[in-house]
Amino acid sequence: MPKLEHSGAILTIDLAALCANWRLLRDRLDGRAECAGVVKADGYGLGAKKVATALYGAGCRVFFVAHLDEALSLRATLPEAEIHVLNGLMPGSAPEFAENRLVPVLNDLVAIEAWRDFCTAQNQAYPADIHIDTGMARLGLPPSEVAVLADQPHWLEGISVVNFMSHLACADEPDHPLNGEQLAHFRAALAMLPEGGRSFANSSGIFLGADYHFDLARPGIALYGGNPTPAQPNPMAQVVRLQGKIHQVRNVDTPWTVGYGATHNVTGPTRIATIAVGYADGFLRSLSNSGCGYIGGVRVPIVGRVSMDLITLDVSSVPHSQSAPGCLVDLIGPNNPVDDVAEAAGTIGYEILTGLGGRYHRVYVGGTTSVRA
Amino acid sequence: MPKLEHSGAILTIDLAALCANWRLLRDRLDGRAECAGVVKADGYGLGAKKVATALYGAGCRVFFVAHLDEALSLRATLPEAEIHVLNGLMPGSAPEFAENRLVPVLNDLVAIEAWRDFCTAQNQAYPADIHIDTGMARLGLPPSEVAVLADQPHWLEGISVVNFMSHLACADEPDHPLNGEQLAHFRAALAMLPEGGRSFANSSGIFLGADYHFDLARPGIALYGGNPTPAQPNPMAQVVRLQGKIHQVRNVDTPWTVGYGATHNVTGPTRIATIAVGYADGFLRSLSNSGCGYIGGVRVPIVGRVSMDLITLDVSSVPHSQSAPGCLVDLIGPNNPVDDVAEAAGTIGYEILTGLGGRYHRVYVGGTTSVRA
Repeated sequence: MPKLEHSGAILTIDLAALCANWRLLRDRLDGRAECAGVVKADGYGLGAKKVATALYGAGCRVFFVAHLDEALSLRATLPEAEIHVLNGLMPGSAPEFAENRLVPVLNDLVAIEAWRDFCTAQNQAYPADIHIDTGMARLGLPPSEVAVLADQPHWLEGISVVNFMSHLACADEPDHPLNGEQLAHFRAALAMLPEGGRSFANSSGIFLGADYHFDLARPGIALYGGNPTPAQPNPMAQVVRLQGKIHQVRNVDTPWTVGYGATHNVTGPTRIATIAVGYADGFLRSLSNSGCGYIGGVRVPIVGRVSMDLITLDVSSVPHSQSAPGCLVDLIGPNNPVDDVAEAAGTIGYEILTGLGGRYHRVYVGGTTSVRA
Repeated sequence: MPKLEHSGAILTIDLAALCANWRLLRDRLDGRAECAGVVKADGYGLGAKKVATALYGAGCRVFFVAHLDEALSLRATLPEAEIHVLNGLMPGSAPEFAENRLVPVLNDLVAIEAWRDFCTAQNQAYPADIHIDTGMARLGLPPSEVAVLADQPHWLEGISVVNFMSHLACADEPDHPLNGEQLAHFRAALAMLPEGGRSFANSSGIFLGADYHFDLARPGIALYGGNPTPAQPNPMAQVVRLQGKIHQVRNVDTPWTVGYGATHNVTGPTRIATIAVGYADGFLRSLSNSGCGYIGGVRVPIVGRVSMDLITLDVSSVPHSQSAPGCLVDLIGPNNPVDDVAEAAGTIGYEILTGLGGRYHRVYVGGTTSVRA
């Protein structure tokens, strides 16, 4: 990680806010339901080891990742946690799952057969989740394959099913008809299948009500401060702050163009601050002439295009003492939380978070437990 | 790096193509001009150590990076190279530049003064570049500060100026009037300043003609296969291939929605292939319902939204044998080079390259030299 003095920006990650978010989500759940933590994509860009360790300290015991390698890394950090792998088995990977006590999400009959054969050969009923597709057409068993499981119980013999699960496509839109349709599909599938745990709700799904909670919720984005109820005020605490350091201030006193493609023109006296953050840091190029920073509550717009390693902001409205080289500008902060930055970029907070780059100096605050290895 | 078996995609980087591109650019230059290599942002996402080592083997001796930490890493790899740091000095960093024989690009009078004072105190004329802003308003001296240098020669006394340099804003648009204006600004500044090397052209600038070549060109994107002449066929060889592995194929036989927000609807029999690549891998979310892959020359469109860890492609038009789990799909390749992927995403190839994520299995081909440390 770059040293503070060398870095163009400081990324502060508030682990206490993360844990408060997990507790808020857990407390929203129907009493029977457990609350997991989704820490795929390196903990939504915030560092899976730090994030998962903090969540474990807060009481979270069940974690979901996407890739086997993410699970192997997490296992080294949390020897006792229950770790599920959403992408499930890759050919030949069953032994690594078993050796590391990882729970594969089985997404089709091929994977179910492979896991069952492995369990049979090892003479041990290893745990797995069964993923039922109710409206994503992405991963999971379609209705025809659910019917196969229902008609031919031998498919699941020898497997210890932890959860039958599905995934919501539109939970952030409470009025979307697909929510109810997916719930109906899921219930219909469950009615055909043997007893087992049931997992359905993502972050937004938790806010759709107790019907969606079942036995295990799997929040991701809301843990990290994204709003699970976009039509309502955000109930989550902000976890991320990104502060760019002003590297140079260019006093423009003659008409001049700013940045690539000369997309911004300065006509009168203007102060342009340059910060060493660019799209190579995951600060999306679609923020060109659209995003902003904040200095002490004052909005400073990004002018010109975002470059690979630099952005330029019009700081004319800020006193010189607060916009000199070395001063900090909130690129993500109290006045411009992740979701607002995403909106200016034409995307969602998830992409802003997972893009947070490796050239930032990272500071973790609010943590109480140490991180292994 | 993820093992091949665990990874959702294989990123192949052709170092021979990279070196061929460098030679092509060098050979386009006016005979007096030297050709550097820009390897900032981890070699445009392709791995600065591997990229710089290959370029050094091809004869490149001068390299540009953005951040001091990138330069320190590159110095460990290439002990003899001439390494320039575009972002220049940070407060207090002069000794690290000198100790590691790094050339700072001095972007304003404050930095010039700091470097001069350091040189004076050390009683040694350390090398530096002087950056003149001719139309970016980003980094570099405005005309008023160039006038100061011209009027008061003591500013540069004690500094060994390697290059007076500037940077083009619109070189990829040969007819843009700013090109000629920037050239005129640069020449006017040079006429006021002492003798020294002169560096102006980026990749596209090399194709604007010999007037733009001066003593040192600094190509970046064209080395990596981006088209420096967007209005003409691309003269550069492709360096990058990204092959996604089909993880699951979902046979949809009833009307069904695909992905988050249910933005794609399947009405007839359709085969949807899921690949474990998503925006957390830098595969931009703006490729939702817009980008495509290729299987054996057949275009397979991305349907539905790009998720964090997954994409879904309609592979109905491809024979089953070529679109089964484990089959490879070109996400960047001969039929869909970087610039085409960028266009589908509404951005430029630079952002596609620098976003290439850490969960891909990387393979370097065409290299002839080993990489240090």
